[in-house]
Amino acid sequence: MDKQEIKNVILEMGARARAAAHALTILSADKKNEILRAMAASMREQEAAILEANAQDIAAGESNGLNAAMLDRLRLNHDRIEAIATGIEEVAALADPVGEVLTEWTRPNDVHFEQIRVPIGVIGIIYESRPNVTSDAAVLCLKSGNATILRGGSEAIHSNKAIAAALQSGGEKAGLPANAIQLIPFTDRESVSVMASMDQWLDVIIPRGGKGLIETVVSLARMPVIKHYDGICHTYIDKHAEMAMAVAIADDAKTHKPGVCNALETLLVHRDIAADFLPQIAEVYKSKGVEMRGDESVIEILGSDALAATEEDWDTEYLDLIISIKVVDSMAEAVEHINTHSSRHSDCIVTSDGDRAQLFMTQVDSACVFHNVSTRFSDGGEFGFGAEIGISTDKLHARGPMALRELTSYQYRIRGDGQIRSKNATT
Amino acid sequence: MDKQEIKNVILEMGARARAAAHALTILSADKKNEILRAMAASMREQEAAILEANAQDIAAGESNGLNAAMLDRLRLNHDRIEAIATGIEEVAALADPVGEVLTEWTRPNDVHFEQIRVPIGVIGIIYESRPNVTSDAAVLCLKSGNATILRGGSEAIHSNKAIAAALQSGGEKAGLPANAIQLIPFTDRESVSVMASMDQWLDVIIPRGGKGLIETVVSLARMPVIKHYDGICHTYIDKHAEMAMAVAIADDAKTHKPGVCNALETLLVHRDIAADFLPQIAEVYKSKGVEMRGDESVIEILGSDALAATEEDWDTEYLDLIISIKVVDSMAEAVEHINTHSSRHSDCIVTSDGDRAQLFMTQVDSACVFHNVSTRFSDGGEFGFGAEIGISTDKLHARGPMALRELTSYQYRIRGDGQIRSKNATT
Repeated sequence: MDKQEIKNVILEMGARARAAAHALTILSADKKNEILRAMAASMREQEAAILEANAQDIAAGESNGLNAAMLDRLRLNHDRIEAIATGIEEVAALADPVGEVLTEWTRPNDVHFEQIRVPIGVIGIIYESRPNVTSDAAVLCLKSGNATILRGGSEAIHSNKAIAAALQSGGEKAGLPANAIQLIPFTDRESVSVMASMDQWLDVIIPRGGKGLIETVVSLARMPVIKHYDGICHTYIDKHAEMAMAVAIADDAKTHKPGVCNALETLLVHRDIAADFLPQIAEVYKSKGVEMRGDESVIEILGSDALAATEEDWDTEYLDLIISIKVVDSMAEAVEHINTHSSRHSDCIVTSDGDRAQLFMTQVDSACVFHNVSTRFSDGGEFGFGAEIGISTDKLHARGPMALRELTSYQYRIRGDGQIRSKNATT
Repeated sequence: MDKQEIKNVILEMGARARAAAHALTILSADKKNEILRAMAASMREQEAAILEANAQDIAAGESNGLNAAMLDRLRLNHDRIEAIATGIEEVAALADPVGEVLTEWTRPNDVHFEQIRVPIGVIGIIYESRPNVTSDAAVLCLKSGNATILRGGSEAIHSNKAIAAALQSGGEKAGLPANAIQLIPFTDRESVSVMASMDQWLDVIIPRGGKGLIETVVSLARMPVIKHYDGICHTYIDKHAEMAMAVAIADDAKTHKPGVCNALETLLVHRDIAADFLPQIAEVYKSKGVEMRGDESVIEILGSDALAATEEDWDTEYLDLIISIKVVDSMAEAVEHINTHSSRHSDCIVTSDGDRAQLFMTQVDSACVFHNVSTRFSDGGEFGFGAEIGISTDKLHARGPMALRELTSYQYRIRGDGQIRSKNATT
């Protein structure tokens, strides 16, 4: 297809998605849940077709030289399809955010105001290899009353098509409006820029993938983009920290699952307790094979157990068993370091002093700030949200773990009995 | 200055604004209010300097051929400066949104979560001629704990500088952090694109002005943009409308102040009551000099009192004593017309049937939907917000009248007593 054809196809999908979004506004919570359960059933029914499509992607991936980890992310099997179906049923069981009255009040002229949670409308999602995102994202958007236009990566195109077809056909049997879930059936690069340009149809765009993808979308998009950037997370061990707790938290945050965005990357230690704390955590880190990169003060205390950190280390998300460590003279220095180097995702203070913790939390400009809790709890599931679409590093609209509520907007509904401004103004 | 110099100056302002934003996070509500009152006093003290600067702008405007309306928007005098100062004092009297606990909960592992309202950080505001925006915008941002970088229009540059200087010097005496309010001291077009590019320093950008300005910012900006587009507002007179109320609302919404964004532009009338309603409203409109442009059914009923509407009329914000009128066969047709042609700002239904009103409100995809109330109440003051920075036509973050709350973000503060994910996970 040439650029113009790609553009025409996607623009038509946009117009159809808008119509679907309007149709979705009047579906009851029960109806949406019925549709979701039908989708889950359809996923199971169409397992053979999905696995066959997936085998095509795997074969193509192998001949294109994808590495083992990439092939694993791409691969579906019975258990993974069952997990997708179960995930859909779990979303059906969550409370419907739509229709919630956020605030209401009456003005002196008896005009009554309600602020009501409503769907956003049409959500564009651009993602990379994992085919389960096709279902996860579409289902969360549907539960919150939104139409979706999905654009997956080329490696998973057959799997994505099969999953989207299963969702759509299962959903339609239960009353899903036509075109509520649409997958762009090709993966030309041009499709990203067409999506990013059509702000008449897409209310928001969510890139799920690496920094390169996010950067591309940000530079092209005319509509709001909800970004999920890196997690350069810090833990600050205050001079009033309890040692055993500090060691346990610094251990857990770094080593429990080092490859995820809420893992610890930089440890900041107050000078007053550095000589006590650092050897203790170093012992744990050494036993677990964590490479330590410290500033001069750290090297003084740990000797050859630590390498010398460079300036670049403070801005690096290792996603690996590597940690940068810095000794600070004060909490203010820790806050300053975090506000300069953090990706504003999740940062922690370990201290027994509640007032200092409060000041730290007020000053640290991050989505999630933890006091005496591992940053590994920066997660929609651990927040109790039931399912998450990601962790937003943005400050507008959605910040931190993004779940159903963050996939909604609001509308003011104003009721009266004939009030006109020329007679009933209050200002 | 060449492009590189402009860029350097503005990037430095951005870095300073970020530092100011961090300093603002720990100011108490009382301190901010003290600063605001000092700014108001400073505006009054520096009246002579401001008027002198304004005289330069007026002289330049006259020699550049600005028309009378534009010169009027630009002109300051004692009363207008007093109004700016009073406006600042009114903002000081409003409740501080920062620190509000939006939600809080405890998980089974005793980890406690708080969602707290916090400042956004650094807000960029790009605006056109009125110099009072310099104060209005900076003051609302400050009250909500944000630093601002202001970029006004070239016509008002001297006035803007004098006002910003008065705010800054008055505020500093009372403890305003340095660089909390910065005005870009030149108006080269390049400054807009530099602001739009510096997402490391600006958390959001708010263009206040015409469609051209907003379009430019949208196409360039890497950070979220909160847009205040047109108001193509509709009023739908249902078949169950009370006639006197319908006439009064259609009159008020169109004629009370036709040049504003919440004024009525298109009237939709149910066919069952068209022959009754249209002659009544036409009589009012004729007496007030409103030009009516109708579809065929309207012309049939009103004859030569109405002109024939073209397709373009349904997408036009007249901001004038002109109205387009269409007869619809059903409420569904009215909803469809509105969702196709409305700017999603403010739309109204007049009906005595509460269920139909509820369905209309659920289906109309606009920021504000009114039932038996004139759309002219779509206004921060009439909502009771005290002061507004504009009416957002966006759906993310801020929708409808934007006031102090909409100038904030939130942060999760998570407290525990040593919980680690490897031991205390709940999922």
